Amino acid sequence: MALTTSTTTPQETGRASSGPCPLDAVFSPKSVAVVGVTTTPGTVPYDIFHNILFGGYRGTVYPVAPGKRSVCAVRAYRYVVDIEDEVDLAVIVFPADVVDRALEQCGQKGVKAAIVISAGFREVGSEGARREARIREICARYGIALIGPNCLGVINTDPSVQLNAAFVRSMPRNGRIAFLSQSGALCTAVLDYAREKEIGFSKFISFGNKAGVTETELFEYLHRDPQTDVILLYLEELREGRKLVEVAQRVTRGENAKPILAIKSGRTPQGAEAAASHTGSLAGEDSLCDSIFKEAGIIRMGSIDELFDAAVMYAYQPMPQGDRVGIVTNAGGPGVMATDAAVRQGLVVPHLEPATVRSLGRSLPATANLHNPVDVIGDARADRYAAAVRAVLADRNIDQLLVILTPQSMTDIEAIAAQICQIQKEASKPIACSFMGATDVVSGVRLLQEAHIPHYTMPEWACRAMAAVQRIRDWQAQPPDRVEPLSVDREAVERILRGAGPGYLLEHEALDVLSAYGLPVPPHRLCSTADQAVAFAEQTGYPVVLRVVSRQIVHKWDVAGVALDLDGPAALRRAYDEMLASIARQRPDAEVAGVLVRPMIPSGYEVILGAKRDASFGPVVMFGLGGIYVALLEDVTFALAPVARTRAARMVRQVKAFRILEGARGNPRSDIEGIEEGLVRIGQLVADFPRIAELDVNPLIAHPKPPGNMVADVRIRLGPQRASHESDERMSKSE
Amino acid sequence: MALTTSTTTPQETGRASSGPCPLDAVFSPKSVAVVGVTTTPGTVPYDIFHNILFGGYRGTVYPVAPGKRSVCAVRAYRYVVDIEDEVDLAVIVFPADVVDRALEQCGQKGVKAAIVISAGFREVGSEGARREARIREICARYGIALIGPNCLGVINTDPSVQLNAAFVRSMPRNGRIAFLSQSGALCTAVLDYAREKEIGFSKFISFGNKAGVTETELFEYLHRDPQTDVILLYLEELREGRKLVEVAQRVTRGENAKPILAIKSGRTPQGAEAAASHTGSLAGEDSLCDSIFKEAGIIRMGSIDELFDAAVMYAYQPMPQGDRVGIVTNAGGPGVMATDAAVRQGLVVPHLEPATVRSLGRSLPATANLHNPVDVIGDARADRYAAAVRAVLADRNIDQLLVILTPQSMTDIEAIAAQICQIQKEASKPIACSFMGATDVVSGVRLLQEAHIPHYTMPEWACRAMAAVQRIRDWQAQPPDRVEPLSVDREAVERILRGAGPGYLLEHEALDVLSAYGLPVPPHRLCSTADQAVAFAEQTGYPVVLRVVSRQIVHKWDVAGVALDLDGPAALRRAYDEMLASIARQRPDAEVAGVLVRPMIPSGYEVILGAKRDASFGPVVMFGLGGIYVALLEDVTFALAPVARTRAARMVRQVKAFRILEGARGNPRSDIEGIEEGLVRIGQLVADFPRIAELDVNPLIAHPKPPGNMVADVRIRLGPQRASHESDERMSKSE
Repeated sequence: MALTTSTTTPQETGRASSGPCPLDAVFSPKSVAVVGVTTTPGTVPYDIFHNILFGGYRGTVYPVAPGKRSVCAVRAYRYVVDIEDEVDLAVIVFPADVVDRALEQCGQKGVKAAIVISAGFREVGSEGARREARIREICARYGIALIGPNCLGVINTDPSVQLNAAFVRSMPRNGRIAFLSQSGALCTAVLDYAREKEIGFSKFISFGNKAGVTETELFEYLHRDPQTDVILLYLEELREGRKLVEVAQRVTRGENAKPILAIKSGRTPQGAEAAASHTGSLAGEDSLCDSIFKEAGIIRMGSIDELFDAAVMYAYQPMPQGDRVGIVTNAGGPGVMATDAAVRQGLVVPHLEPATVRSLGRSLPATANLHNPVDVIGDARADRYAAAVRAVLADRNIDQLLVILTPQSMTDIEAIAAQICQIQKEASKPIACSFMGATDVVSGVRLLQEAHIPHYTMPEWACRAMAAVQRIRDWQAQPPDRVEPLSVDREAVERILRGAGPGYLLEHEALDVLSAYGLPVPPHRLCSTADQAVAFAEQTGYPVVLRVVSRQIVHKWDVAGVALDLDGPAALRRAYDEMLASIARQRPDAEVAGVLVRPMIPSGYEVILGAKRDASFGPVVMFGLGGIYVALLEDVTFALAPVARTRAARMVRQVKAFRILEGARGNPRSDIEGIEEGLVRIGQLVADFPRIAELDVNPLIAHPKPPGNMVADVRIRLGPQRASHESDERMSKSE
Repeated sequence: MALTTSTTTPQETGRASSGPCPLDAVFSPKSVAVVGVTTTPGTVPYDIFHNILFGGYRGTVYPVAPGKRSVCAVRAYRYVVDIEDEVDLAVIVFPADVVDRALEQCGQKGVKAAIVISAGFREVGSEGARREARIREICARYGIALIGPNCLGVINTDPSVQLNAAFVRSMPRNGRIAFLSQSGALCTAVLDYAREKEIGFSKFISFGNKAGVTETELFEYLHRDPQTDVILLYLEELREGRKLVEVAQRVTRGENAKPILAIKSGRTPQGAEAAASHTGSLAGEDSLCDSIFKEAGIIRMGSIDELFDAAVMYAYQPMPQGDRVGIVTNAGGPGVMATDAAVRQGLVVPHLEPATVRSLGRSLPATANLHNPVDVIGDARADRYAAAVRAVLADRNIDQLLVILTPQSMTDIEAIAAQICQIQKEASKPIACSFMGATDVVSGVRLLQEAHIPHYTMPEWACRAMAAVQRIRDWQAQPPDRVEPLSVDREAVERILRGAGPGYLLEHEALDVLSAYGLPVPPHRLCSTADQAVAFAEQTGYPVVLRVVSRQIVHKWDVAGVALDLDGPAALRRAYDEMLASIARQRPDAEVAGVLVRPMIPSGYEVILGAKRDASFGPVVMFGLGGIYVALLEDVTFALAPVARTRAARMVRQVKAFRILEGARGNPRSDIEGIEEGLVRIGQLVADFPRIAELDVNPLIAHPKPPGNMVADVRIRLGPQRASHESDERMSKSE
């Protein structure tokens, strides 16, 4: 797929017409200055210059090496400004404390882009952070695109550029995968790993502390890059989560869609702590990141091997038309294991068409298994494999094929590999292979890899890669969400917020805010006498609930500030008086604004609709089922606010306990559409009012419709009068 | 650990004194006849003979090849009986239809053991199954230990035997890992995979259809085998689950403990179907298998690579004293990823002692990270690695060490590997390495492997292996369960069962059965008039529940056969009459035995105690939390009956929702001990009465103590009067 579409991408033309991109100077410079070169082989400054010079770079490279006449026989310069010609890119390898001066000179010289390899910035503490701020400022002032600092550099394998401006052992082969890494050291391992698997790269980018150019700008560049089909990312720090989502959604869908596969480390609190001490970064909440990556089209992977296993499957084979996997094997056991793995990964291992089974019956021996997984039996040679592979590929129930081989004495491994290579030339369905073992299969594996047929030592790895491609496919097929305008009473909320200081809104205020945004709030009144309460209860009907309202009382239950199920005026009056007496006794400090009266809400399934502001993602909405079971299982999902209706529908369905709402076991179906609507409206509310730092509808009682759902309790916490979008608030799920 | 203890195992002496084991003839025969040899290289019959002859076998091998004078220059025999000398082992490679005759002759000759390589038995259908029954009968009659049929054969690498009686390409190297596989073809892949990783085997056994010798007998043999430290198993079919558990528990614990690591495939319904068509086997319920393997000390692994990754970690390194992992890396990113992986696998990545941090501070550069994961920085060479490894190994907070290396330009990979090899010679804590990449690191990796330091390309794989060893450690530390005698009224149950036919017991009978075994059953009476019901209710107190009792009515709710919360005699009489009228109208066919009266049970957390008879495991007990949430999440656990109290305690704690019973969120703690007691008593009940095919206490209402738990509903299904232990019943969890 990618191999063919990328050459005809409309963006290619588009790019030419939209003028030069600032990152062109990074990836396709006509001239490069390496600033701070030494003449000692084995040091970073020397190696980088050496890599550019001997890596086949098609432009001109200038060493800037104060005090040297030449480096590797190339005339050296004292300062960048001394270079007679124009310089597109400076690669800076000076010690951290003089990088700022070098960048100043670059600015004066009119250098368009700089890669700062040097470490000793934000990652080493506050002095480094100051240095980093300084170089960021210089680059901004001169309009220099800055990669790094604290990075390994950049590689562009494009034969017309061939730039290895990185501190690595060797140039990777050319290919259609772009790799971006926040960790520099990881890159060396990845290059070595990829070389052995014959994986090629279009661009290879270590972006380090990302003081200037970030992963999102790189995504945009690679989206337009006709050499790149798929983008891999290793990320430790999510600094601009919302921008990342916006860009990733654009890159990963539509006509020129390029999948983004990512590892985001620091998933556990301990890992996040390690990441913090390593890059000085702050990790966000992992489950939030997980939910939101899913909705940004970023396919999250667990480890480097999974990342490349999936990338190769995507980059080298056509996109499957569905999730149904055919398996051909010469060993029953691995066929069973592959079936288990495929199904556990969410793929389908279907029955073959009767015609296929008949055809297999003609070409396979009597002891073979003609059903999926097809077992051609241990003594199968290339002809038998070829017949089975052709038959299963042609089956209309099959979207993709996994060929498993165990090296038995009669197995002509290379001939089988050659047959598969031959067949895949004409195949429109993707093929993956698992030639199990190691040394015996090595020449067959090489043939496969050369023909760009993805190979996995274990069938389970193949299934995992196929499942990742399926996730890409599902994402690309999902229509983009569209946030629709809502009819809400924005002014009513503005009025309530105008009068409120920072901290929690009073309960009736919070209910009125929800009501103004169209959430199903029960009729309620703040009463200051038992008579008022009775009068209101007579209007709404019994039974009713009383809830004390006081800015000083956050936990109403602790002070007997709630009375439930009051079924008449006598019970109401008694409860009212007892409540006020109890509070006067227990919390003489509390200023009681009144007692909220509302009807008792019939019991139903409890769900939680929440919102908060994340430091990286901005306003987000949360959904989960309430009740003690689900709270223990932490079965929640998140989305960026505002939330489209289609996204809200997926949110509700992403929690494991969703089937409860659907009416499992003969119970009636809850008003799921009402819950979705609630999420959309809360999303709009927190998007409209940056002062809302945190909001929890906990619980919303879900009922079949009619009567539909009802808010049973809500808490809204405000920030100061001029709230920032970037406040680092955490949502508390506790009452 | 294993390397040292195995040479001094008491079993070694014990074995000598207990006389020869029948499997000695399989693994250490003095003489072998290969029956059915041909002279065509590349065929199974020829290759096997060739492998034995040229594999360095220390005994005598005889080809039995009708019509040939010699094979590979060795004098051939027409029949086994023609061989002049004693024959310990026959390896039979004749076509399936003449294997029976060959075995008859082996019996006449006094051959002690036979390996039937030939396929064409149970795995090909009913005719094959008949053939298999025939050869099983012949072997039983002559006392021949039978391996296979439909297998690859057996390898013993013991230098004093050196028998390669298998259809494989080459002899594996000698080592301390035994590998058993039900799939023959998988073996060839495993051997190839292991060769490349320099993994050695003590025994390598393909046991195929296991018509004679099964995995349990092999476990017992390997338990006594002084060459074997750890047992690996690939299993598709669980035929004698209960025996497997009993043997595995003996093998995996105690003084001569040898861990069993296993892949049980057919985990998904589709995988099970594939396994069935492959071996003719029936797969059991996977979650049942999972629960019970855990309690048999069988460490279940997901794939072949995980299996060997763990085995190598166990076999080659000392047992860690705890789960705390120290990490030394020259790359921050992989350090973060390893921390994430370790924590997600249940290991601990602790802080280092202050003294260690100080010591690291003296030997590492300023930019290094002195905290776990320790980052020695990309330019670290062997001396810096050595200092960090020594310091972290010496830390009292650390039980095991993971060394990560990425191949950067200054990294002297081989020197670093050599240093680690040197350090581990004196180390008492286990060390694993992850030299990331492929070609650059290969010579370093070879050094590590030669020194038996486990190496993993990805740090995540190392963490997974360490976690598997931790599971072994946890299991070995867990004291064996002991089933204690219970005081029960066995005769009361016998009386009830004696009168009952197959099918469900009536509700009062089922309650009485539970009551006789000491379960907390509410007072109840089967009444045939409203007067009786009122009289009983006056005794027990209101509110009460009425439940119709009729053999024809299984679903009481559907016919209004239940009335709840009757709070006085009037309500009771009305409900009684309405119920009988409704049933007479809706189910005129139903024979009503009466109406059960019992007190209303106050609400609490619902739990399910169940029991059934599994075809492979026999009587098993099930525990899960009730309610719709948990049912959807299928959060249940199983144990073999009878159940020890200690096991019941673990069962209750193995379900995810356990914390609810502990009193999460300020709720009172339920009577957990009462639930454990209930599981023990139900386990005893189904163990004592094989006629009980299925039993469901659903729900038991859990309460704090006092008053403690109470059975709210129960169903007991009986088999025919003489029930078999081996009936293939499934437990239904539905009401």
